[in-house]
Amino acid sequence: MQSSMTRLELNILGCGSATMTPRHQPSCQVLNVRDNLMMIDCGEGAQLGVRRMGLKLMRLNHIFISHLHGDHCFGLLGLISTMALLKRSNSLTIHTFKDGVELFSNMLDYFCRERPFEIRYNVIDTHKRVIWEDDAVTVTSFPLIHRVPAVGFLIAEKPKLRHIIGDETKRLGVPHYAMNSLRQGKDWTSPEGIIVPNEQLTTAADPAISYAYCSDTKFSRRVIQNVKGVDWLYHEATYDENLRLKAHKRHHSTAIEAATVAREAGVKQLIIGHFSKRYLDESLLLDEARSVFPNTRLANEGLVIDLNESEVRG
Amino acid sequence: MQSSMTRLELNILGCGSATMTPRHQPSCQVLNVRDNLMMIDCGEGAQLGVRRMGLKLMRLNHIFISHLHGDHCFGLLGLISTMALLKRSNSLTIHTFKDGVELFSNMLDYFCRERPFEIRYNVIDTHKRVIWEDDAVTVTSFPLIHRVPAVGFLIAEKPKLRHIIGDETKRLGVPHYAMNSLRQGKDWTSPEGIIVPNEQLTTAADPAISYAYCSDTKFSRRVIQNVKGVDWLYHEATYDENLRLKAHKRHHSTAIEAATVAREAGVKQLIIGHFSKRYLDESLLLDEARSVFPNTRLANEGLVIDLNESEVRG
Repeated sequence: MQSSMTRLELNILGCGSATMTPRHQPSCQVLNVRDNLMMIDCGEGAQLGVRRMGLKLMRLNHIFISHLHGDHCFGLLGLISTMALLKRSNSLTIHTFKDGVELFSNMLDYFCRERPFEIRYNVIDTHKRVIWEDDAVTVTSFPLIHRVPAVGFLIAEKPKLRHIIGDETKRLGVPHYAMNSLRQGKDWTSPEGIIVPNEQLTTAADPAISYAYCSDTKFSRRVIQNVKGVDWLYHEATYDENLRLKAHKRHHSTAIEAATVAREAGVKQLIIGHFSKRYLDESLLLDEARSVFPNTRLANEGLVIDLNESEVRG
Repeated sequence: MQSSMTRLELNILGCGSATMTPRHQPSCQVLNVRDNLMMIDCGEGAQLGVRRMGLKLMRLNHIFISHLHGDHCFGLLGLISTMALLKRSNSLTIHTFKDGVELFSNMLDYFCRERPFEIRYNVIDTHKRVIWEDDAVTVTSFPLIHRVPAVGFLIAEKPKLRHIIGDETKRLGVPHYAMNSLRQGKDWTSPEGIIVPNEQLTTAADPAISYAYCSDTKFSRRVIQNVKGVDWLYHEATYDENLRLKAHKRHHSTAIEAATVAREAGVKQLIIGHFSKRYLDESLLLDEARSVFPNTRLANEGLVIDLNESEVRG
């Protein structure tokens, strides 16, 4: 079944918090949607993560920046400079707040002025709205609660096409031009006027998967509403429960709070990240989160998750 | 002998060229002068290099930027943000071109506005002149030949003090207050009016060491003049001899050109770096350089060189 599914993979390039450490890079992820790459946040060293994970820079056409803290965007400069050196030609769209457009366009116009490709900016704000869509997915921003304006991103696959039952369409002599209509769920009428119900000629479409990214944010009921029922949730879990006050003060979440969002929103799977550098490993955070929401896994640099999976593997 | 010498160590944090690779970071070095740290260039990921090499950020008070290409300065943003998180209080001086002051102060005022320390900017240009000095060293800029304004840095220890011969000063009853004068090479006159020559009471001072950094630059006779007789020379060697035309076109040097600078300038030791990412290892560059100047070594991330050494070790 899985091999017939359309590719939808999450690549974790960085899941540390503000300071780079030998263990963790700052925030950066790449979602591979049918071999088109979308980057979510772009901390320092993102270009190295791309290279280490063997991702094709030329297939990366959209970068979404959740908020303007350095650990979520300082990698843009090096990444885009490298794209210019590689003689990229297709345009790149950066989805970011207005201040980010001004700051980064200023830097890139100086350091990367001879780039052979266009950079487009899509100005986002903290409203919930569709900020981008193509044939495969819709990307919706929604507000997070942080020290500066911040948004989460909900990436939802559009409904997929039904699968043709080849033996049956062949037997009935369904012509090639009718296939798209069948895939969309319509019945087929033969030249003789006989209506063949769609269910006889196709099997169900693969499920459309949804993924939500929430980093950085304080625990919030509003976030729960906005990620209701998603298949996969990435939620920051900067601190353990002993540091809940610190988390609140700095507008971050604890692992238990992240897991509470997952449970209350009824998501299928939770990935936690944005770990404080104080943890030598994150097993404490994982244990705490699993006590509330068992279907939790830790993010880690180099981790690739097939979002078509219905069960957590690792 | 060596243990009595004042500390002078070169730490290589990055010696790759424009693109980060898993093998090499972009340009960044830290010179440890008697436990005061000076950074030369600050490519992306510099803060991680500092951490990996166990260097104390609080002891880093000066950053010298050779030119405004991203692979020599994009690390400033993350490094300085981390300094702010660590609650640094002492001021930091960045020595850079005028454009760099404008660009980086603009970014840092946004992303790092609540920093608890002052950033001072020392505006440099392509003239040869002393841009900074303290009790231990003088830092002189001199012009390089690159696609944008660029300078090399010559860091020269000031003459050191002579060593007291303790047994002799004790025997003659030289008082404590006279010691500094002895260290500076003056004779001592006893209360009885007897002049004791300095050579009887002291041994020679340790040699004052000099280090020159030349990256990025085309081969240039003028550079040779400016690094004449230094003890240690770091010179870029981006390409091998087969790519000499490419080197010239991009205003870079080949390994043989770097070695020619070292030989013609009569330096004691050469370190080559700023390697193109095309080399899986740099033995070709080392072999080529050594054919012209045997006393050459390759830079590498994590390498620490005691500049008091008189011989290349590795």
